[in-house]
Amino acid sequence: FSSTTPIKATLFPGDGIGPEIAESVKQVFTAADVNMDWDEQFVGTEVDPRTNSFLTWENLESVRKNKVGLKGPMATPIGKGHRSLNLTLRKELNLYANVRPCYSLPGYKTRYDDVDLITIRENTEGEYSGLEHQVVKGVVESLKIITRKASMRVAEYAFLYAKTHGRKKVSAIHKANIMQKTDGLFLQCCDEVAKKYPEIYYEKVVIDNCCMMLVKNPALFDVLVMPNLYGDIISDLCAGLVGGLGLTPSMNIGEDGIALAEAVHGSAPDIAGKNLANPTALLLSGVMMLRHLKLNKQAEQIHSAIINTIAEGKYRTADLGGTSTTTDFTKAICDHL
Amino acid sequence: FSSTTPIKATLFPGDGIGPEIAESVKQVFTAADVNMDWDEQFVGTEVDPRTNSFLTWENLESVRKNKVGLKGPMATPIGKGHRSLNLTLRKELNLYANVRPCYSLPGYKTRYDDVDLITIRENTEGEYSGLEHQVVKGVVESLKIITRKASMRVAEYAFLYAKTHGRKKVSAIHKANIMQKTDGLFLQCCDEVAKKYPEIYYEKVVIDNCCMMLVKNPALFDVLVMPNLYGDIISDLCAGLVGGLGLTPSMNIGEDGIALAEAVHGSAPDIAGKNLANPTALLLSGVMMLRHLKLNKQAEQIHSAIINTIAEGKYRTADLGGTSTTTDFTKAICDHL
Ligand SMILES: CC(C)[C@H](C(=O)O)[C@@H](O)C(=O)O
Ligand SMILES: CC(C)[C@H](C(=O)O)[C@@H](O)C(=O)O
Repeated sequence: FSSTTPIKATLFPGDGIGPEIAESVKQVFTAADVNMDWDEQFVGTEVDPRTNSFLTWENLESVRKNKVGLKGPMATPIGKGHRSLNLTLRKELNLYANVRPCYSLPGYKTRYDDVDLITIRENTEGEYSGLEHQVVKGVVESLKIITRKASMRVAEYAFLYAKTHGRKKVSAIHKANIMQKTDGLFLQCCDEVAKKYPEIYYEKVVIDNCCMMLVKNPALFDVLVMPNLYGDIISDLCAGLVGGLGLTPSMNIGEDGIALAEAVHGSAPDIAGKNLANPTALLLSGVMMLRHLKLNKQAEQIHSAIINTIAEGKYRTADLGGTSTTTDFTKAICDHL
Repeated sequence: FSSTTPIKATLFPGDGIGPEIAESVKQVFTAADVNMDWDEQFVGTEVDPRTNSFLTWENLESVRKNKVGLKGPMATPIGKGHRSLNLTLRKELNLYANVRPCYSLPGYKTRYDDVDLITIRENTEGEYSGLEHQVVKGVVESLKIITRKASMRVAEYAFLYAKTHGRKKVSAIHKANIMQKTDGLFLQCCDEVAKKYPEIYYEKVVIDNCCMMLVKNPALFDVLVMPNLYGDIISDLCAGLVGGLGLTPSMNIGEDGIALAEAVHGSAPDIAGKNLANPTALLLSGVMMLRHLKLNKQAEQIHSAIINTIAEGKYRTADLGGTSTTTDFTKAICDHL
């Protein structure tokens, strides 16, 4: 099998370990006969006035045109007067839902077995508004913004995801007992959407209780949908249950059909260029991208190859207690294909 | 041994299971020869205009006068135009630091061994300002307020706590990469206080990463200090590591030397009045109160009696997988004294 017309997709290798793990994805995709035409994009070295960020206009246009992409870690260069690369991508491309599946990898033991969670995070507003100011000296405030528009679209996405993926339950995570208006509006939108999905069990869970229950018994949850900051926190917590961000994929869903898969771990500058990085999160994100493109057969083949390589345990990178290099681990996956 | 002058302290039995677990504390304290003169306080049945809450002026005055108290769970009656009981207490009494120790109970197995964490939560401001409004239809905002005053006093408290309790490390938890001004001010205050404690290792940890590391390896942390909402979330997460809020004590520290120990679990109306409740969290909170009063000998005796009763496993309430009633469990503790 080989798809005849190549699939055009944007690739941001990112920095730090980004180029090495992106190389791993390219090799594995090739070994699986996925005919990709990667449109590689590199962040600029100067602030682009059109984006007020090191992201260039061309970077954004590439994703807008291809509608699909894969992104490695990007550390925002230190300095003032420009925006975080990740946030700029999310806002400029309207990446309104961030989907992060967290599932136990067979053969890689943590304290938790059979974790199978999907966190769906509102990705554009909430505590990430960037609106902050000093009221008087020693008193600062920041604004959390919740809109009906953004809450509805992420709630719609979450329920549709649950339905199309055979999930049974959606939990809306909130702190509406304290933030009655903001989180209250978010919940109202979830309530409204839930009514259209009577076959999906719907519940509301206060964030503190959710975190306690997640560490006690993650099997209580299935799909979780929530405002931006809670999603940031809970998706990392869930990743921790199965081994950390090095093992968990993510995909950002934007308007106009855009989908940008992303490894959300850091760029690990300390091990960059040393052939030590674990490419699993970016590989699994690549699998999410393939599923989005409906290349299900190749997606499942690659997924199995990654899972089996880790499960066998012969080739594992240092973060998983092994001694393999990135290239050895990648080769082992390719050999499984 | 028996202290001759009785110690006056406010007791809020609270509602739901509150009265039963408060009764357990009274019995255990008596068995340990702690000579208490409990000033029992009950929340009103109507809103007190002087507090704009079901908490009465007398309730607050009792704590102000006694300087020390113990509080069971209080569910805020539903309705409009009055404030949450818990929040009113925190704000009116200026209970600026909420200390929640989470440690593994010997003999009660969870996925984690040897957890020993102290979360110290700013308790008066941040996301709990209550300032929210609708900007236009479908757009609401809430204000997070961080002040130098509140941040300094909780940071001072955290480092002093670490020093006086032989702790080695304080981690300040934040999301200053996104909320640069608000969480930035909180961190600045922690930095400033940290300088006065060169013997204590000080670090800053982003909240999402903190949650991931807590579930992967809680031994990385010792004392954690943070703004209000992060404290709410992380203290529940930490409680989850050792079994839940039914097993973890807390104490609120106020200005003018006020200390109000508190079980932070819910009032469990479903099992109220059935002699099924686990009084451990309130008992351990009582122990914190005794330590605060420098009644260390009795505090340690009671603490050992609770721990040993749970460790032996013969008398455990239903939430811990046993079949004991509240009174049986309480009697078992008294028998250990
Ligand atoms: C790097 C940071 C701004 C980002 C966030 O807070 O969203 C990260 O934690 C993530 O989850 O993608
Ligand atoms: C009941 C609720 C308002 C409270 C809070 O959010 O602080 C509770 O979760 C707590 O931690 O004491």
